[in-house]
Amino acid sequence: MLDFVGLGLFDEKDISLKGLEKIHNADKVYVEFYTSILMGTDLEKMEMLYKKKITVLSREDVEQHAEDWLVDAKDSNVVFLTGGDTMVSTTHVDLRLRAADMGIKTTLIHGASIASAICGLSGLQNYRFGKSVTIPHPYVSNRGVRVVSQTPYDTIKNNIEAGLHTAVFLDIDKDKGYMTVNQAMEILLEVEGKLGEGVMVDRLAVGIARAGSPSPVVKADYIEALRDYYLGGPLHIVVIPAELHFVEAEALVKLAGAPEGILENID
Amino acid sequence: MLDFVGLGLFDEKDISLKGLEKIHNADKVYVEFYTSILMGTDLEKMEMLYKKKITVLSREDVEQHAEDWLVDAKDSNVVFLTGGDTMVSTTHVDLRLRAADMGIKTTLIHGASIASAICGLSGLQNYRFGKSVTIPHPYVSNRGVRVVSQTPYDTIKNNIEAGLHTAVFLDIDKDKGYMTVNQAMEILLEVEGKLGEGVMVDRLAVGIARAGSPSPVVKADYIEALRDYYLGGPLHIVVIPAELHFVEAEALVKLAGAPEGILENID
Repeated sequence: MLDFVGLGLFDEKDISLKGLEKIHNADKVYVEFYTSILMGTDLEKMEMLYKKKITVLSREDVEQHAEDWLVDAKDSNVVFLTGGDTMVSTTHVDLRLRAADMGIKTTLIHGASIASAICGLSGLQNYRFGKSVTIPHPYVSNRGVRVVSQTPYDTIKNNIEAGLHTAVFLDIDKDKGYMTVNQAMEILLEVEGKLGEGVMVDRLAVGIARAGSPSPVVKADYIEALRDYYLGGPLHIVVIPAELHFVEAEALVKLAGAPEGILENID
Repeated sequence: MLDFVGLGLFDEKDISLKGLEKIHNADKVYVEFYTSILMGTDLEKMEMLYKKKITVLSREDVEQHAEDWLVDAKDSNVVFLTGGDTMVSTTHVDLRLRAADMGIKTTLIHGASIASAICGLSGLQNYRFGKSVTIPHPYVSNRGVRVVSQTPYDTIKNNIEAGLHTAVFLDIDKDKGYMTVNQAMEILLEVEGKLGEGVMVDRLAVGIARAGSPSPVVKADYIEALRDYYLGGPLHIVVIPAELHFVEAEALVKLAGAPEGILENID
C-alpha cells in the first residue's frame, strides 16, 4: 500500500489527522521537498511531531529510481509526503502510475492547497478564476539576450477579457531563489513596456505572502505601487483580478488595504 | 479573535492539527453545514473527537443575525468551522468583513478543497483548468416550461476551445437532493440535443464520487456511457477534460478505467 499524503501549506501542523494516522501506521515514510517546500518547518520538527523517521527523496530518487523504494509498498505500508495537496505535480501522478504498474494499491490523503487558499485570503471567489500561470525568472540567452516570458501577460489578458481572475505562481529557482511579488510586478511592467497593450496600466493586483502561516500578508494595490510594497519573506504569490463583484472589492479594501477608489463603479 | 477553520473533504479526521489546536483553545465553536456538508461524519462524531461542544448555525444565524454570536469574539476565542477549505462561499467572506467592521481580528486555517482534490484523483493537471461551473437541477417554470441551464454547456465549450479542462460542480438542493454524475450527463446530453453544436458528442468525461473518503470512485468514459455508470453514493463531481497531455491520458486509462482508445493521437 502506498499512501500519498498532502502536508498542506506552511508547517508540520498543517497535516490532517487522517494523514498523521497514515504516518503512524506506516512501515516507511518518505518526503520530497523539490516540487514544493514548507517554509515554516524542517525535517527535524516533522520527525519530532510525527514520531517517525522520515527519509528525504531527491528528484533522482523520485523520477529515476522510484522502483527501488516503491517495491516495499507491495507488502508493507509506505507513505509519500509532499507539500500542499498531493498529486499537484505531474511527477506525483507519474509515480502513482508506476505504482499501479507494479500492482501496488494507492490512496490519496488530501491537504490544503495554495490554489484554494488564495481565494480565502483575498476574498476573491473561486469560481471566477480562469487559467493560472507561472512567472519564470528572466534569463540571459546564449546570445546574450535577456529573455522575459510573455506568456503570463497573455494569460492575464485573456482571462481579464473573459472576466476571470488569474492566479499567478512565482518561480522558485535553486540559484535565483524565490521570486517576490515586487520582482513579479517589475516583470509584468517590463512586458507592458514592450507590448504597450495597456493590460498592466492602472491594473489592480493582489500580493500574498506566507499563506497558511500565522502571519500572512495580503496587499492589494495598483501594479506600479505594489512593485515597491514590502511583503516580507517567502513564499509569495500574486492574483490579478478581473472586474470585481461588490463583496470582492469590499474584501480587498477592508482586508487587503486596496485603494478605496476601487469601490466606485462596481455593480 | 475569530478563527475560520476548514474541515476538509469527508469526515471529522480531515481537519488539520492546527485546526484542532484552534478548537481546543476556543471558548466557543460553531459550524455551518448549509454551504457544504461532510458526508462521512456528523455532529456527534465531531464533538467526540474534538472533545468540545459545537453549535450548528443555520443560514439565518450566519446571514441575518451574525452579530449576535460574533460579539463574543471581541474578547474571547471563537472558532467557525466549514466543510472543505474556509472562505469558499461568499457568505464566509461577508462574515469576515462584518467581523472586521466590529474590530474583531480573524485568522484562516485552511483545509483540503474539492477544487484541488479532483486534480489528484483524476491525474488532470491543476494549471490546465479554466473557469469552473455548476449544473443546477432543471426546474419547471410558472408557465409550465422545463428550464435547463445552458451555461454549463457554454462554459465547457469555451474552455475546450481554449484547451482547458472544466470542473463541473453538481447542484445540491434541499428538496431535489444531491445531483449524480448520471443526472449531470443526462442534462448535458439534453442541452446537446437542443443546441446540436456537437460539444458533448464522443466527449470524454470524468465522474468522481466521494472524494476524500476511503473509497472514492473515479470513472472516465464518454458522456453517453458515463450516463449509465453507477458510481455509488454522494457527493459527486464531474470534470470535462480538454485535449489531454500524455500522462493525463495514461492516468485516466490506468486509474479511472478510460477507454484505451484515448491514448491514440496524443502528443
